[in-house]
Amino acid sequence: MSRSVVAAMTAYTLELREAEIKLNQNESPYDFPRELKDRVLARMAERPWNLYPDFESTSLRTAVAKAYGLAPENILVGNGSNELLAAAIGAFVGPGTPVVFPRPTFALYEKLVTIAGGLPIPIDFDPDSGLLPLDAMLSAIGKHQDSVAIVCSPNNPTGGVLPDGGLDALVRSGAMVLLDEAYADFLCASVVRSFHHRDTEKKLVTFRTFSKAWGLAALRIGWLASTAENCREIRKVKLPYSLNVISEAIAEAALEHPEIRNRNVERIVAERERVFAAMQQIPQIRVFPTRANFITFRTEKALFDVLWSKGILIRDFSKFLRVSIGTREQNDAFLSALKEVV
Amino acid sequence: MSRSVVAAMTAYTLELREAEIKLNQNESPYDFPRELKDRVLARMAERPWNLYPDFESTSLRTAVAKAYGLAPENILVGNGSNELLAAAIGAFVGPGTPVVFPRPTFALYEKLVTIAGGLPIPIDFDPDSGLLPLDAMLSAIGKHQDSVAIVCSPNNPTGGVLPDGGLDALVRSGAMVLLDEAYADFLCASVVRSFHHRDTEKKLVTFRTFSKAWGLAALRIGWLASTAENCREIRKVKLPYSLNVISEAIAEAALEHPEIRNRNVERIVAERERVFAAMQQIPQIRVFPTRANFITFRTEKALFDVLWSKGILIRDFSKFLRVSIGTREQNDAFLSALKEVV
Repeated sequence: MSRSVVAAMTAYTLELREAEIKLNQNESPYDFPRELKDRVLARMAERPWNLYPDFESTSLRTAVAKAYGLAPENILVGNGSNELLAAAIGAFVGPGTPVVFPRPTFALYEKLVTIAGGLPIPIDFDPDSGLLPLDAMLSAIGKHQDSVAIVCSPNNPTGGVLPDGGLDALVRSGAMVLLDEAYADFLCASVVRSFHHRDTEKKLVTFRTFSKAWGLAALRIGWLASTAENCREIRKVKLPYSLNVISEAIAEAALEHPEIRNRNVERIVAERERVFAAMQQIPQIRVFPTRANFITFRTEKALFDVLWSKGILIRDFSKFLRVSIGTREQNDAFLSALKEVV
Repeated sequence: MSRSVVAAMTAYTLELREAEIKLNQNESPYDFPRELKDRVLARMAERPWNLYPDFESTSLRTAVAKAYGLAPENILVGNGSNELLAAAIGAFVGPGTPVVFPRPTFALYEKLVTIAGGLPIPIDFDPDSGLLPLDAMLSAIGKHQDSVAIVCSPNNPTGGVLPDGGLDALVRSGAMVLLDEAYADFLCASVVRSFHHRDTEKKLVTFRTFSKAWGLAALRIGWLASTAENCREIRKVKLPYSLNVISEAIAEAALEHPEIRNRNVERIVAERERVFAAMQQIPQIRVFPTRANFITFRTEKALFDVLWSKGILIRDFSKFLRVSIGTREQNDAFLSALKEVV
């Protein structure tokens, strides 16, 4: 009934299980401050709900641009960075377009490329090194004309990053580079760069989200940065009015309080380092280097179900397991359960 | 830079003008009840914002199913019905798929078909009759194998509907029928039917929105109804977590109060009939029959700018003009300005 590429696809799935300690979706363990919630919601109760959002999302685009030293015409905002990734793929990937990406990575990329009729070129790599397979990606790009490269750095679900100079090399390769920085806040340094005056970076689109470091996954807010021309083209594909007024207002309020993000990042990175060091001490598991808010590891023994039976839900990728960084208490519970079951 | 079909496209645009009386976007003139706003938002302040929405939107899908006499597996919910239309087109329209639709209609359909690489087959018709071009659509469907038909009934921006029995004829034609019922509330009778046990209706997907009759355009909430199998296929294309938790909770609260929708529809339909009758009395304009929350009309004289200069913003489609039904006061202001300027 559906077209053949869709019929052949499996759905993006999530194992739906309840658990006392939920470390399976790379969510922030820290909720948005209650006082700020109340302030934005009080304002939103006054706002008419019968009228559409601003057509251009000018106010939030301006706020993002200001916060990151860019201009509003270099920014698009959307219903989670997923929506913007889908729009960018719609703009740059047509039937037969070669699309190079590391594997394993975020499963959505390959699905979106398949729906667009593109030719997925996954580059298998070993997450053990903590680095994404730059050379193999460059070589694949060199073999295919007019290719698109998708790279998530730090990479979900493995935690590794592009090697030093890797982004520049990709951008110089001639491919259109879609850089998913959903986890880049946890690098402890912003890698959004001032790029729109550099010719070579006409080929770079960077994606960011409020779901992870800002702790706003429930609200579905993402943004992208690129040249004004790329933004114009992607906007043709993006649906109009895709960000509701409440999420938009919450994102604006968040940007006025960067200390929320900074404090979240500080605590999560400190916990990540602590949990990583503890996991390295466990001889039965092999931990991959990580710069994100999660830790991915390999083990001989099947641990997913047995951890779950102890009230701890992590994510099973069959070849490895991924645990999100939670609060100190959650992480301690995970570590002690892990030590018990390995 | 972008692929050729996208580069050749124009963006979906909206003329951004300020006006005292805004009748250009088919918005409801009635805001959501304040008490209900406050109640839902108070609940949402308690809900953790750092955690993703429910993966299956089970609660809202169940509420929609209950309200319309369907089962949850026949329902998908999304970020406005636009998102679901885009997903359905992604599921059923591939490179070269013939897609039959009336023209003029909602401009987004042709854009989405073009992005999907489909072959748009617009069927020109005269909105004067108040009816969509069923016979010409059936004939086009007969000439193309495995086609998809998109029909908006009542049609935006002309106000007309499918002739009696038209939907059944389309569904029997063998085309996959995407029926956009964004304005169907204003027919004064629900046309969502119990369809999932009828074989022929394996080829029908119906789209609904909370933006118009419910007066929730700011929140971006839509849903679709189809067979469980079609829902599964469309869900493969739809992005995960596309509806934020606040919009989802608001839609659920709305469904518990159908009197909100019913009262809005009653007032808007009464005003539509009154404004329509008044416009018919103006010899210089030709009004198209309408079953929606707007009235579309033709005039020899260019009226858009002159109405705007009088504080009234309507929508200009170059061959005709469209005015949304507002409050009685707004409609009176429109009518007296119109009489003055024709």
